[in-house]
Amino acid sequence: MTTTISPLAPKVYADLPHIAGVRLATAAAGIKYRNRTDVMVMVFDRPASVAGVFTTSKCPSAPVEFCRQNLSHGTARILVVNSGNANAFTGKKGREATRLTASAAIDAVGCAETDVYLASTGVIGEPLDATKFAGVLGDMAERANADGWLEAAKAIMTTDTYPKVATRTAELGGVLVTINGMAKGAGMIAPDMATMLSFIATDANIAPAALQAILSEHVGTTFNVVTVDSDTSTSDTLLAFATGASGGTRIESADDPRLVDFKEAFRQLMADLALQVVRDGEGARKMVEITVEGAETDAAAKRIAFSIANSPLVKTAIAGEDANWGRIVMAVGKAGEQADRDRLAIWFGEVRVAVDGERDPAYSEAAATAVMRQEDIAIRVELGIGEGRATVWTCDLTKEYVAINGDYRS
Amino acid sequence: MTTTISPLAPKVYADLPHIAGVRLATAAAGIKYRNRTDVMVMVFDRPASVAGVFTTSKCPSAPVEFCRQNLSHGTARILVVNSGNANAFTGKKGREATRLTASAAIDAVGCAETDVYLASTGVIGEPLDATKFAGVLGDMAERANADGWLEAAKAIMTTDTYPKVATRTAELGGVLVTINGMAKGAGMIAPDMATMLSFIATDANIAPAALQAILSEHVGTTFNVVTVDSDTSTSDTLLAFATGASGGTRIESADDPRLVDFKEAFRQLMADLALQVVRDGEGARKMVEITVEGAETDAAAKRIAFSIANSPLVKTAIAGEDANWGRIVMAVGKAGEQADRDRLAIWFGEVRVAVDGERDPAYSEAAATAVMRQEDIAIRVELGIGEGRATVWTCDLTKEYVAINGDYRS
Repeated sequence: MTTTISPLAPKVYADLPHIAGVRLATAAAGIKYRNRTDVMVMVFDRPASVAGVFTTSKCPSAPVEFCRQNLSHGTARILVVNSGNANAFTGKKGREATRLTASAAIDAVGCAETDVYLASTGVIGEPLDATKFAGVLGDMAERANADGWLEAAKAIMTTDTYPKVATRTAELGGVLVTINGMAKGAGMIAPDMATMLSFIATDANIAPAALQAILSEHVGTTFNVVTVDSDTSTSDTLLAFATGASGGTRIESADDPRLVDFKEAFRQLMADLALQVVRDGEGARKMVEITVEGAETDAAAKRIAFSIANSPLVKTAIAGEDANWGRIVMAVGKAGEQADRDRLAIWFGEVRVAVDGERDPAYSEAAATAVMRQEDIAIRVELGIGEGRATVWTCDLTKEYVAINGDYRS
Repeated sequence: MTTTISPLAPKVYADLPHIAGVRLATAAAGIKYRNRTDVMVMVFDRPASVAGVFTTSKCPSAPVEFCRQNLSHGTARILVVNSGNANAFTGKKGREATRLTASAAIDAVGCAETDVYLASTGVIGEPLDATKFAGVLGDMAERANADGWLEAAKAIMTTDTYPKVATRTAELGGVLVTINGMAKGAGMIAPDMATMLSFIATDANIAPAALQAILSEHVGTTFNVVTVDSDTSTSDTLLAFATGASGGTRIESADDPRLVDFKEAFRQLMADLALQVVRDGEGARKMVEITVEGAETDAAAKRIAFSIANSPLVKTAIAGEDANWGRIVMAVGKAGEQADRDRLAIWFGEVRVAVDGERDPAYSEAAATAVMRQEDIAIRVELGIGEGRATVWTCDLTKEYVAINGDYRS
């Protein structure tokens, strides 16, 4: 397995400020890895509003089911996340493992079971030995502090080559609030769900229903429009917590006009984290932004964009820095959405390579290839049919992806 | 680009007998390749019944449109196939190229335009210089002979590492008839269409409508259930020709009871060719048969089977000989069809690895790994919900797939 950091990694990691009411700790519980942390806890000193989005998999992990059940209660006191084992497809043993972990978490902070949130990431199908949490959670809750966001992001990594963190501030009802977030994910990344693990916390004073509405609204243009390999995890979990420690009036509705600045900052933070996941796509060397315009509807545009983004032939061409726009045509054609070959136009960056259903008369292989040599590549397809529009993000498909995934488990 | 023959290639190629009424020839017209043949013609001395199935792509190639138009006429005198250029997404120039090629074909055999069939395979988006056909087709039609099926199959190869041919005989109305077929395809292979180029010829005396019904019926369990990379070509074309030279009463309906033996032989030949395409999947080292049982419906079973067959994570695990059945669970979960995690059972070969939603109590890593080391791997999933059933075939995803497709065009 490669241990090289993705060439698309951020040059510097964001320096995350404190979020009043949030404390973090990490530990090495030896779940699978050696010589690294594999447990992270986030402790909320007072019950925080919580919102969540989960995988659409019909075979979700035990922790996903656990969180879904608790979400209706709306408050959280502790989040426990482990890497190395996903506790997915572990049947009755999996449910016992979540119960055991929750029980240790309850003891650690003294809360109700409905205030506990759990997430696990790693290998599927192997029983998770939850007794490993029993010994560490109490100590972790005690030494948890407001620093350590980057360390927390490191503890939840699996095949990630770098920790993913982001921060934003926003004005909310006359108060300056902060939003911090972290994410993990590099493979088994595809849309229509929360697409990996991501945890966001803010000191804003927002009710659970309003927080949920904001999270659900923005997931469609952030985490749900990135894809690494079209594979949907059993464990995808995106949770947001609002401690309310910033003070100010509590916001009850997502439609509250005071939320304008906060919502935009929240969306930007989600997009930032989602793109960091793509930039750490397993084996990735290129980041690709795919925009489809002129489709029958926005939904049709999104399906065509994903057909391009998930095509192995498009992704390998990008890896090979080959301006093979014929494969874009192929992917448009197979999407099943309305398309008129003879109206299609395609751009790589600013270079139009095809127009009116054939190669651009002014096509320059040199110009197209120069775009393909870049690290960030924008592909745009104009269908010329309607007003539908969508943008999705993906990475290239390299030999390293195959190498990483050919022996991940062993 | 690799030039090694797939390790999954047949040990010997079938020896194809003559089909009365069919003559073949190949030529090197220099369309793209050097030092190899790139044009194949199949000449029918008398009008043969013809049937066809084509790509479902919304951006089909010019030859696909040309064949679709002619099909209603029901007879064929000549088939012209070239490799090296797909004449797809070539706009007006593409239609001119098919017209020019058809015109040379008409001159070569003296027939109506509606009796001409064309197929092109290779790079998309580059204008095809059809003047290259003008010089060779007349000579080819003259020297065409009943031998040379293997040579014909070689002339239509692109990234294929071996020619694909198959033959069967059947009893039809008291007469012994022969069916020969060839196929090409190694990448851009996915279901819901004819899935590459394949040409089948028989001396059976069958009307076009009956031949079409047989072809359409069997495509669903043969060519449409194989996938190499989930990518659907713009050029997929499957054509069948029946010369009637065997004599006997002409069969007008596919429901004719005399067809029983013929239909089975025809289906077997189609399956044989379809599996040869998978066995030459770009970079393939393993052939994988995926069976899903106990689904809500057959259609649901097929969608789940394809979700497994097209999952990059499943395919790379197979390449790595890793019995990573957790990824099978993932692929079942993401298919969107009804599944109950806690009833799921999974077999690799004869080894049950998971049952009742968790790892089999008798799970043996050694036994599972022994299956993964084989060249042909059978994966079976039992959902325990209904009676729906489907089998699909695919190959593994190796670094060679990435290498082949990272620089195919350049």
